[in-house]
Amino acid sequence: MTRPSFLDLAEHASKPRSVGVTHVLDKGLPLPQLRGLLETAGEYVDIWKLGWGTAYLDRQLVPKIRLLEQHGVRACLGGTLLEIAWAQGRADNCLDWAHAMGFPMVEVSRGVMPLGQQDKSRLIRRASERFTVVSEVGLKDERHQLPADEWGKEAARDLDSGALLVVAEGRESGTVGVYAADGSVRDEVVGTLVSVAGVERILFEAPGKDQQAWFIKQFGADVNLGNIVAQDVLGLEALRLGLRADTALQPSW
Amino acid sequence: MTRPSFLDLAEHASKPRSVGVTHVLDKGLPLPQLRGLLETAGEYVDIWKLGWGTAYLDRQLVPKIRLLEQHGVRACLGGTLLEIAWAQGRADNCLDWAHAMGFPMVEVSRGVMPLGQQDKSRLIRRASERFTVVSEVGLKDERHQLPADEWGKEAARDLDSGALLVVAEGRESGTVGVYAADGSVRDEVVGTLVSVAGVERILFEAPGKDQQAWFIKQFGADVNLGNIVAQDVLGLEALRLGLRADTALQPSW
Amino acid sequence: MTRPSFLDLAEHASKPRSVGVTHVLDKGLPLPQLRGLLETAGEYVDIWKLGWGTAYLDRQLVPKIRLLEQHGVRACLGGTLLEIAWAQGRADNCLDWAHAMGFPMVEVSRGVMPLGQQDKSRLIRRASERFTVVSEVGLKDERHQLPADEWGKEAARDLDSGALLVVAEGRESGTVGVYAADGSVRDEVVGTLVSVAGVERILFEAPGKDQQAWFIKQFGADVNLGNIVAQDVLGLEALRLGLRADTALQPSW
Repeated sequence: MTRPSFLDLAEHASKPRSVGVTHVLDKGLPLPQLRGLLETAGEYVDIWKLGWGTAYLDRQLVPKIRLLEQHGVRACLGGTLLEIAWAQGRADNCLDWAHAMGFPMVEVSRGVMPLGQQDKSRLIRRASERFTVVSEVGLKDERHQLPADEWGKEAARDLDSGALLVVAEGRESGTVGVYAADGSVRDEVVGTLVSVAGVERILFEAPGKDQQAWFIKQFGADVNLGNIVAQDVLGLEALRLGLRADTALQPSW
Repeated sequence: MTRPSFLDLAEHASKPRSVGVTHVLDKGLPLPQLRGLLETAGEYVDIWKLGWGTAYLDRQLVPKIRLLEQHGVRACLGGTLLEIAWAQGRADNCLDWAHAMGFPMVEVSRGVMPLGQQDKSRLIRRASERFTVVSEVGLKDERHQLPADEWGKEAARDLDSGALLVVAEGRESGTVGVYAADGSVRDEVVGTLVSVAGVERILFEAPGKDQQAWFIKQFGADVNLGNIVAQDVLGLEALRLGLRADTALQPSW
Repeated sequence: MTRPSFLDLAEHASKPRSVGVTHVLDKGLPLPQLRGLLETAGEYVDIWKLGWGTAYLDRQLVPKIRLLEQHGVRACLGGTLLEIAWAQGRADNCLDWAHAMGFPMVEVSRGVMPLGQQDKSRLIRRASERFTVVSEVGLKDERHQLPADEWGKEAARDLDSGALLVVAEGRESGTVGVYAADGSVRDEVVGTLVSVAGVERILFEAPGKDQQAWFIKQFGADVNLGNIVAQDVLGLEALRLGLRADTALQPSW
């Protein structure tokens, strides 16, 4: 079924795309539900992050990664698992396993374990040998905030080390990292990241609808957005295109 | 499997019904998940609104509408898409497309675009030629509230123009329109709507469980409730019948 | 597919288990979605409670109970339905029906109807003739709190009457019973319950992630947790094992 064309809408790059990326945070969606989602809305998803350590536990991991690949979606190993492996001296074991499972992408982060920036850069370079790498910047802890210039420096070093995209931390709650505790955007952090890396190299974790709308109004339909809940994929695409109250363009007459 | 009968419960009209209507806000539920829901709980759903512009984007739209029809559920095009089309001078194109796709019902609203009441009435009449029409009253914006008497006037004019039901705005958040920002019911608005149109012609958007319980306690099991999340259909039916703590009748002895 | 083994993780008892129990609150998950969940994560679920009165309404009840049994998960009839039946003088009809449907487990509670402790004990003994029984302690009402010593007394009497586990009330909201209105744990209640019954005989309703993490940090991976949302099963297992930021062990060097 082809999409209708009777409306003038905002333009969103089509797949495969390097901007306007939609990145889902998967909390363990079973295979049949994933298949249904991809048949309905697969063209609107680019990266599928198996969050936390769920990839380690999912009995359907290999068929899941294959199914994603068939729909042009890249499975990404969430950063927490690699951090835990690193802390146990087993980062290489983790990367070997991820490679054997068929992951094309891994996230490198330092939100849980005490990796220094040098450790992180080394891990990005190491992972880049076999995977596309995205790196995460920002703290997971509600009680601490990273100053804006630290975000910028870390983003720059991660990109230099080989990361394709820098992921701006927001968690699944949308109340830490690039957000204040009330969920509002810390716009000086966003500004610094964009000036350092360019908006097309940043992927903003934006689990909430108001957060998604903020970024789309700020940067347009082709902003990269992440930690999207699987059930919200079609709703986010409607937001990108201006098909929802929050981003619909008023007539100019 | 027939339903058990060992309990005395509140009575909810059975399908097809004109009161006690349950209206789901669909955010893009994939086809296999929809099939599963309808097999488990199809007799408890009457209207299935494809929210925002998701109908424009869903690759499975036609089989979805057909599946709903097989289970006696009316697919309804959400009002936002028609408003956007109207603002682009393409309301008729939108209605032609909805008809071709097989929608039996459309919603006419003016929550996003600057339609006047006359434009709205004209659109309701136009749509009524080929669809069952429901019209929405109320504002989507948290910063503005429509006075109760305005709700009443607009509801009356919409019904005169041919709407089957008036939908009282609550959005998916349940914090605007017929609700205060804290989610509590604006009961003077409810009272005005009911006195103008009769409770059986109003469909209250009530996404939250406490909101659903409030309306059921106020108006009984056969109140029309809308913007129900797909996952809550069975829970809402339990609420209607008094099978859940919030609405269970205490013994009278 | 066997689980990888390159990490040292917290240990969670394997099925069938009497500690480390995960208990899901089902709000009406359709059969195909349940099948998908069990294939992905069935080894991480022990008890499947059909919440409120949904069991009375679900057209797929019998195949659902059978499917759960095939995956070693015990279907449990939620306490509200039995309370309503008791208030109508039909507790035996309800138990007969539950037995005919194939339920291996029922919950006995007094959160909705005015059962006295003696009525509850009698109902536990009655149900124990044909079912494994779990009993619920605590109030559902946000405006009232049961003192800690009352929790302890009721738990002790329920276990004496034949309950396998005592369920500490938290509802689906996580803001009543064992929790304060802000969702924080009432630790004097938890302490009393544990000292009276032993942690392995208590199942804490813990719908929120922070609540789950609190209990796991307090009592370890083998704490019994309940009212888990179906979508969170894999995420909870990651929390139990330390595969998620909230419970990941920092390196000791």
